[in-house]
Amino acid sequence: MAARYDFVSDNVAGAMPEALEALAAANQGFAGGYGGDHVSRRAADLIRELLDVDAEVRFVASGTAANALSLAALAAPHEAVICHQDAHIATDEAGAPGFFGAGMGLITLPGDSGRIHPDALARALAELETSYRQSPAALSLTNVTEYGALYSETAVAALIGAAKQRGLKAHLDGARLANAAAGGFPLRRLAAMGFDVAIMGGTKAGSTPSEAIVLLDTSLARRFDARMKHAGQLVSKARYLAAPWIGMLEGGAWQTRAAHANAMARKLAARMPFPILHPVESNGVFVDMDEPTLERLRSLGWQAYRFTDASVRFMCSWATTDEAVEALAEALKQVG
Amino acid sequence: MAARYDFVSDNVAGAMPEALEALAAANQGFAGGYGGDHVSRRAADLIRELLDVDAEVRFVASGTAANALSLAALAAPHEAVICHQDAHIATDEAGAPGFFGAGMGLITLPGDSGRIHPDALARALAELETSYRQSPAALSLTNVTEYGALYSETAVAALIGAAKQRGLKAHLDGARLANAAAGGFPLRRLAAMGFDVAIMGGTKAGSTPSEAIVLLDTSLARRFDARMKHAGQLVSKARYLAAPWIGMLEGGAWQTRAAHANAMARKLAARMPFPILHPVESNGVFVDMDEPTLERLRSLGWQAYRFTDASVRFMCSWATTDEAVEALAEALKQVG
Amino acid sequence: MAARYDFVSDNVAGAMPEALEALAAANQGFAGGYGGDHVSRRAADLIRELLDVDAEVRFVASGTAANALSLAALAAPHEAVICHQDAHIATDEAGAPGFFGAGMGLITLPGDSGRIHPDALARALAELETSYRQSPAALSLTNVTEYGALYSETAVAALIGAAKQRGLKAHLDGARLANAAAGGFPLRRLAAMGFDVAIMGGTKAGSTPSEAIVLLDTSLARRFDARMKHAGQLVSKARYLAAPWIGMLEGGAWQTRAAHANAMARKLAARMPFPILHPVESNGVFVDMDEPTLERLRSLGWQAYRFTDASVRFMCSWATTDEAVEALAEALKQVG
Amino acid sequence: MAARYDFVSDNVAGAMPEALEALAAANQGFAGGYGGDHVSRRAADLIRELLDVDAEVRFVASGTAANALSLAALAAPHEAVICHQDAHIATDEAGAPGFFGAGMGLITLPGDSGRIHPDALARALAELETSYRQSPAALSLTNVTEYGALYSETAVAALIGAAKQRGLKAHLDGARLANAAAGGFPLRRLAAMGFDVAIMGGTKAGSTPSEAIVLLDTSLARRFDARMKHAGQLVSKARYLAAPWIGMLEGGAWQTRAAHANAMARKLAARMPFPILHPVESNGVFVDMDEPTLERLRSLGWQAYRFTDASVRFMCSWATTDEAVEALAEALKQVG
Repeated sequence: MAARYDFVSDNVAGAMPEALEALAAANQGFAGGYGGDHVSRRAADLIRELLDVDAEVRFVASGTAANALSLAALAAPHEAVICHQDAHIATDEAGAPGFFGAGMGLITLPGDSGRIHPDALARALAELETSYRQSPAALSLTNVTEYGALYSETAVAALIGAAKQRGLKAHLDGARLANAAAGGFPLRRLAAMGFDVAIMGGTKAGSTPSEAIVLLDTSLARRFDARMKHAGQLVSKARYLAAPWIGMLEGGAWQTRAAHANAMARKLAARMPFPILHPVESNGVFVDMDEPTLERLRSLGWQAYRFTDASVRFMCSWATTDEAVEALAEALKQVG
Repeated sequence: MAARYDFVSDNVAGAMPEALEALAAANQGFAGGYGGDHVSRRAADLIRELLDVDAEVRFVASGTAANALSLAALAAPHEAVICHQDAHIATDEAGAPGFFGAGMGLITLPGDSGRIHPDALARALAELETSYRQSPAALSLTNVTEYGALYSETAVAALIGAAKQRGLKAHLDGARLANAAAGGFPLRRLAAMGFDVAIMGGTKAGSTPSEAIVLLDTSLARRFDARMKHAGQLVSKARYLAAPWIGMLEGGAWQTRAAHANAMARKLAARMPFPILHPVESNGVFVDMDEPTLERLRSLGWQAYRFTDASVRFMCSWATTDEAVEALAEALKQVG
Repeated sequence: MAARYDFVSDNVAGAMPEALEALAAANQGFAGGYGGDHVSRRAADLIRELLDVDAEVRFVASGTAANALSLAALAAPHEAVICHQDAHIATDEAGAPGFFGAGMGLITLPGDSGRIHPDALARALAELETSYRQSPAALSLTNVTEYGALYSETAVAALIGAAKQRGLKAHLDGARLANAAAGGFPLRRLAAMGFDVAIMGGTKAGSTPSEAIVLLDTSLARRFDARMKHAGQLVSKARYLAAPWIGMLEGGAWQTRAAHANAMARKLAARMPFPILHPVESNGVFVDMDEPTLERLRSLGWQAYRFTDASVRFMCSWATTDEAVEALAEALKQVG
Repeated sequence: MAARYDFVSDNVAGAMPEALEALAAANQGFAGGYGGDHVSRRAADLIRELLDVDAEVRFVASGTAANALSLAALAAPHEAVICHQDAHIATDEAGAPGFFGAGMGLITLPGDSGRIHPDALARALAELETSYRQSPAALSLTNVTEYGALYSETAVAALIGAAKQRGLKAHLDGARLANAAAGGFPLRRLAAMGFDVAIMGGTKAGSTPSEAIVLLDTSLARRFDARMKHAGQLVSKARYLAAPWIGMLEGGAWQTRAAHANAMARKLAARMPFPILHPVESNGVFVDMDEPTLERLRSLGWQAYRFTDASVRFMCSWATTDEAVEALAEALKQVG
């Protein structure tokens, strides 16, 4: 039996046809490099339109880089970024924020299902500033969270509002922003919520490797290309990072395919024989499963991933099929 | 008249068909991430075969990152890398080596047409070590050089030999290694010449953004994936960085298309009415042209780039056509 | 009533007479700079003698720098250092390890009174290495701990032994090593215990600002002066950082005055009306005291410091007098 | 014959009596740490008074750190600092600016005797900004220069004025600012000249290791203590870095002893049998001397230092005696 990776992550899927077709379409003729080309401009226009903002947009190949690079533009090395204790930047990026930020720190806070608890934020913001601690300069929120939970606009605005009162900047890790949007998070309100920078995830949404850095605070764009080059994030043939966005955005595939992924997760949740540990508000289902059971599941060929909080995670993507959900549900019943 | 960018750089061309087809072919089914997939393994195998080595291979989207990341693995922050004074890492990468290397220094040396002069290297290696200078820990050579000149195997081996006597490591910036190979540089001798790390350029050769980091000294591979992740250079959907290499290497297109680019440069050189300033040993032609003449050329629609040494540079690529060379030659005659 | 800072920290005391006299004595004539002088050599000799090792010794003005600089020599930027969750490097050095180490991470472990629990270390060492986490390359122990607790030689050797089995290096934060030595920690066994680098604290022991970096693994000394210079830690008039050590070590004042500080802490503990929260094994007494009580104490002029674990900390030093302990004990009784 | 180091550098001298006496005087009682103490405040007051400014003042032990730390506050990692090609930060600080600045670059300019030529600055400022070069964000001037030459107020104001027109900040490396002041450079005009940060050298002036960072732009002081701590530059017993300044400034010794050093250099110059290569405007004499002659001089016991530009350098200090100048002049005549 062939191993099945379908649900290991949403980055194990390939690229959606719309992305690949746009890539091929972009492969015509000569074009200037480093983001000054027509493809990059068109992709940026589509993003500005989608978000209803007058932002500067850049594309990089790695979500880790997109986060770390933009956070380093918001906080100095001797300052810190506030994030959830299970945020990707804190647990899964091998210390990249500290590298891009020359030792910039993270202040990690608790909260259910990856959402920062407002009280925890209030306490962190009330901390006395001292010379021997890294005081916060930015707040990073992830929507949807690492546990698939959705922040509402109101919740986000309240957290950012509290942070801005103390002079902090706000960053959105939107690796799964498409899933958040499909879940009702209003993209056209990002600026109003107070974000200074938003990362829009392409990769997990179904692109070849590409993430958009949206500089809502356009003053951050000054010398940002040099910042990218300095950090090894400015590719010469930039059109290939931008092109998939044209394919994903022109016809709305970025959102509709995320809606599909979310629907697949709901379907899986509906048939899940194990206790579900986090709200199924996007494309992941996190369950309570002991190790012997997980081993039995794996022996049936189904790969799955034990996550930060010890839950077992099943991720759906644009490429998840009804058949796969059925088959997995069958296997889960069998080992449950 | 439409502006023509054909000769501005070899990164203004699109991707060769072989690269794009392989990318599409890699877009099947689910695959593990971060380089552990079958596509990445196959591409690495092809590179090992081409170089006849037992090396570890990684793929990144940016040549600047490939250089800086690997140099940071060879020299400590308080040490330096020796390179040519016009090396890309010294002049065109916005200080990336210093960033990836936490302040790692560069010691820049002279030499004709981008080739380090052996005497200059000898003097640099003979410098007394002090606490207030960054002593060299690695030598970086670029082949072909920024001026299109080719180092011979003998010349490379002599420079590396001198460096290794002082304990230095050796790095190859092979952004245009395909052009060097097409010019006679023996790829299967890289290990014998003493390189510890070689960067194989994909982008300028005709790939979508991708560069191969070849760790000839496999001890460098320990935790290298974490090093990449830490530096924002490990993408989840790694297969899309590896796939083009399968297309370019399986049928030899990486080399044959570089040979085409080199031939186009020779053809252009043969018809060049301006003094040629560097040996035409690969895909570039560097000429002496004053500013008014360059302006006239530009007014005819031909974009060109005044380079580090004030020469005007015309670069050919896999996509350069006979027609374009003819047309440019015509225009040059007209303004000359 | 004048505020009394005596017990706020052991760094609020001045320098012991022996240190200052040696400083004055070193102020004769001309001397080469950057550590190549006779004063630096003599101080290093005394330290080698005290520790019975053939180590390389350097002096810096800051304990934070001593720790961060030496840890950066033990772990790469994409690696991590294991330490106690309340270690000074984790809680009180403003992210310096991450700065000196270019994003080098910390893995923080629990354990009573600042001593890493062996089981916690075992678990950390057993963690699977992945590309998205910073795997450990060094273990940092603090003796005495931030809570004044003493590691025994056996306990240290066991922790380091476990770490070395996994290839880690070992670092000693000895900001209060004098107090540990006075408490019975055998200085001449540091090498046998497996430390690669030990920081010997001068400042808290009663020096003007000076900490000794003892490179027990002498291979670390290669280009270490350049590493110091690069990191702004190599002063030209190095003799003034070394001289106090001559005064403190020649007559044994470094140890005997630490023994005095320890004795003062025991005396204070004996009269302490509040619950003592950590073993009094060196020069600090940590007690359970609510905020109103602490405020009353402060209103009597006694400054005190609420510590990481919320205990109130009273630190003794070489300069603590019997009278001061009596007076503080009186005040504590009054507010208790 | 004992080797004589008198003229090797101005950092081979000990500390002037005023500095050491103030250090001893500061050694009374307990004091808060990290710069919040009465000694630090008093020293800062004296500096503000001397410069007639409302600046924030910090003290560090190393001039390299003082420069690099403050430059990192003026330029981002992907930006550069403009300085003279023989500036200490460019040639003698082991890449510290690149370390403190996370890869921050230097743009080095020519000019006689260490003074940046206005035309060279104009050209550098006129450079087109690109993504692949580090564009300048600050100008660093050294007064007196590494060759002992003095910038006039007019010359400084003109250079800074040009830089400020392009939005750059201005930094003064004043390692020998006392000598500049003694030569007529008006300290009370630093703010008017446009400096944002000035480093006032204590060490070479005759202090134990201490340099003052004067933040003329007080907005830079925000979280500067954390910046210092993060970079290993905030010592707990800060009073010992501040105290010497009280001794040196209260009675004017910082200036009068620098005037003595300058006078000794003039005296040496008057008797110099070798061609003098740079204007003797402060405390150094730079001469043209071939290697055999230098060797003969050394064989007479006189140490001397061949400098960046291949001149042989003789430095005077507060401790240089008439007798020493006579004796050296005698020796020079003998070998000349």
